[in-house]
Amino acid sequence: MKRTKIKQLLESGDAGSKVTVKGWVRTKRGSKNVAFLAINDGSTINNIQVVVDVNNNENEALLAKIHTGASISIDGLLTESQGSGQRVELMAENLIILGEANPDEYPLQPKKHSLEFLREIAHLRFRTNTFSAITRLRHSMIFAVHKFFNDKGFLNIHTPIITGSDCEGAGEMFRVSVFDPKNPPLLEDGNVNWKEDFFGKETNLTVSGQLEGELAALALSEIYTFGPTFRAENSNTSRHLAEFWMIEPEMAFYDINDNMDLAEEMLKYLVKYALENCMEDLQFLSKRQQEEESQKPQDQRSMELIEKLKFVLDNDFARISYTEAIDILMKSKPNQKKQFQYPVEKWGTDLQSEHERFLVEKHFKKPVILTDYPKEIKAFYMKQNEDGKTVRAMDVLFPGIGEIIGGSQREENYEKLLNRIREMHIPEKDMWWYLETRKFGTVEHSGYGLGFERLMLFVSGMGNIRDVIPFPRTPKNAEF
Amino acid sequence: MKRTKIKQLLESGDAGSKVTVKGWVRTKRGSKNVAFLAINDGSTINNIQVVVDVNNNENEALLAKIHTGASISIDGLLTESQGSGQRVELMAENLIILGEANPDEYPLQPKKHSLEFLREIAHLRFRTNTFSAITRLRHSMIFAVHKFFNDKGFLNIHTPIITGSDCEGAGEMFRVSVFDPKNPPLLEDGNVNWKEDFFGKETNLTVSGQLEGELAALALSEIYTFGPTFRAENSNTSRHLAEFWMIEPEMAFYDINDNMDLAEEMLKYLVKYALENCMEDLQFLSKRQQEEESQKPQDQRSMELIEKLKFVLDNDFARISYTEAIDILMKSKPNQKKQFQYPVEKWGTDLQSEHERFLVEKHFKKPVILTDYPKEIKAFYMKQNEDGKTVRAMDVLFPGIGEIIGGSQREENYEKLLNRIREMHIPEKDMWWYLETRKFGTVEHSGYGLGFERLMLFVSGMGNIRDVIPFPRTPKNAEF
Repeated sequence: MKRTKIKQLLESGDAGSKVTVKGWVRTKRGSKNVAFLAINDGSTINNIQVVVDVNNNENEALLAKIHTGASISIDGLLTESQGSGQRVELMAENLIILGEANPDEYPLQPKKHSLEFLREIAHLRFRTNTFSAITRLRHSMIFAVHKFFNDKGFLNIHTPIITGSDCEGAGEMFRVSVFDPKNPPLLEDGNVNWKEDFFGKETNLTVSGQLEGELAALALSEIYTFGPTFRAENSNTSRHLAEFWMIEPEMAFYDINDNMDLAEEMLKYLVKYALENCMEDLQFLSKRQQEEESQKPQDQRSMELIEKLKFVLDNDFARISYTEAIDILMKSKPNQKKQFQYPVEKWGTDLQSEHERFLVEKHFKKPVILTDYPKEIKAFYMKQNEDGKTVRAMDVLFPGIGEIIGGSQREENYEKLLNRIREMHIPEKDMWWYLETRKFGTVEHSGYGLGFERLMLFVSGMGNIRDVIPFPRTPKNAEF
Repeated sequence: MKRTKIKQLLESGDAGSKVTVKGWVRTKRGSKNVAFLAINDGSTINNIQVVVDVNNNENEALLAKIHTGASISIDGLLTESQGSGQRVELMAENLIILGEANPDEYPLQPKKHSLEFLREIAHLRFRTNTFSAITRLRHSMIFAVHKFFNDKGFLNIHTPIITGSDCEGAGEMFRVSVFDPKNPPLLEDGNVNWKEDFFGKETNLTVSGQLEGELAALALSEIYTFGPTFRAENSNTSRHLAEFWMIEPEMAFYDINDNMDLAEEMLKYLVKYALENCMEDLQFLSKRQQEEESQKPQDQRSMELIEKLKFVLDNDFARISYTEAIDILMKSKPNQKKQFQYPVEKWGTDLQSEHERFLVEKHFKKPVILTDYPKEIKAFYMKQNEDGKTVRAMDVLFPGIGEIIGGSQREENYEKLLNRIREMHIPEKDMWWYLETRKFGTVEHSGYGLGFERLMLFVSGMGNIRDVIPFPRTPKNAEF
């Protein structure tokens, strides 16, 4: 018989029908006459309860071999459940063990494991409630991103992962090479002869698809990228990964206000999609977070997850300039009382996470979009304002996360862009293609980047970025 | 006024309404009293015709500065078109030049450019009919892949790009490192001390997400990957890229027949999606292909593109074993007449593209799925058949393309898998996590890989893989 997924059985299976279920045993409990197996197949956070008659020699022998982690197949009769907390349960008629799991060796036992331990067995953590809930939620967010942009007529562009340009400027890069690492070919002056490498030049892993994304937008109007990006930075924190996924829309004919509107609309769409499509997983993750935080003093606990998500939907994001933000921060209590680790003393300083969180969580009590930052602390490609001091940057700040989106209107004026490239000592000759889009049919345009794992932290309520991506890449760690 | 996309105006704009259009000039034609500008904004293959009154000094001066490639904004009145081939055209009332394009410098003139030339200006080729049609089609295929799997309850998994394992076995790899290339730290024995590199070990770019995908499937039942993969092979052909995108579904509880059913269903879904959502672009690409092939002798021309796509939908794929295929090939005319470059002489030889195309295009005249290949020519993870000689591999062969999908049922038996790993000298210690999934709750499972650019070649009718990805990466080429 064709197997039916457990999600489907629990939601709409007809009591009285014969079905086949396949999955992995989460727990086994016994009473005098029957054994209860909780079976999960990953289609839902919920297990189906399988009831096995013990007064049957064959079953008894099988049950002795069934432990947590074993895979089994059950043909049986779906019946209304008396007390398992589910609508239906399965009365086993034919039980087959597909694969055993020796309880002395299998690392996932029915007890609470630490997240740190689960990272060490990332090949098996998909089999836990927490990580399966996160993986389903992550899938839903991936699909929602594509659906949001597709429905609006944006085109997904695959920008290159291996890049020959090192002017993306967003951070340290990983080199990509096929040279014998001990004996790379050298030039007469002792430098490495990159012309002999695979691509005929020095190449790295991309830190952003933005520059190539702009090329496509300046022909096709509205595009987005969704791909892996890389930072070779030795940051061993709960917020940094060496390999992470970014979503980068770029839109011709958008100014910074259109850009902010799109970012706010997208974030609300994604949060709404999660609430409408992943409620059971969100409820589980909420409970998990509350248990974890029950140790903390009341005032350090996060807002309940689902309440927090609804809060984003219900409020317009505050929109203020960097200059206004500095003003608020300088006058703020924590700044006056010297409670910030980095005191805010003058216009021009870069904002730290503590400042961003103060604005969002204490001052405005909702998401905030900051605009018009000093040009010195922002990238070369941002459009310069008439004041000569600021650029049309925009950062979206979220509770608990800080910056979740960074973007800007792009400088579309050839001369201004070229000057800025020269001022900032960016290798001009590597940028010919980027500059040419401002030379031929240039238009006002804007875009932003959303770090996908930052979004995942927000919607899942998890505290460490290594727990929202299947196989995290961090300093000294590329296992699996 | 908010701009309206050209696609929307051409499809459903009301004659008599005032609208704003923004886009790039494709051509400018003039007559005594009016000028005609063909404007494109990337939302559709079709241009909107803008009619400008020349008997107006302001317009005359502007028109003198407008050439192919310039970006303009037009407010005007949408009117029923008399003869432009479109339903509506735009009578310009207010014309603004956003960005000029000097005709002496702008490389894209209104004439036929070679595909080779366009690759050299990949930053601008999005502005051509051919490449914008391909990009819209590529987006539609990306979205269709996600929609197909999402609707079936599959979860998208982001498998790692940087991998510490070199046992994926699909080809030569690119090394990823942060070492100073001239002076990597050495061990006493003279070898490179990888422990000091960023990840504490030697790392490469992935050639496949399959092994990690299996880990997820063996907990969540049905998953798929869709990400970039890499081959450091010096293949300068029209069929190979160093960086390309792969779709790799992995399914627990699927045998090889379920696997074939899914592959056939998916390919038909994607082709149907293209026909239903991209007809105008397909018609353009079909015409393009026919013009290109009009030079060739009749018997070397491809089937017309749309006819070819419908042909895939209308026919069940032939399913035969490798052994049957060898039999057919050995008895075939081209083999008897020694017309194959690689004669088929005995069971066990690997099939070449010419053999695959003979089976598909000449013998069966429809897509073919070949199964049960000799184990010697297939990967270690494929499930061994009872005959001891073959494995449950399956390759889907398409007209014009050859292999478009490669997959198999996976070996789920721990002992058999371990033996095969040892026989093939795959470093066992690096595979502990993969092996453990066969130790704990193992189940029958299957999967396959679809090279996304191979699919794009098929649905677009293009001949060179460098023309179906925005920024191709090939030997000696990582520009943009």
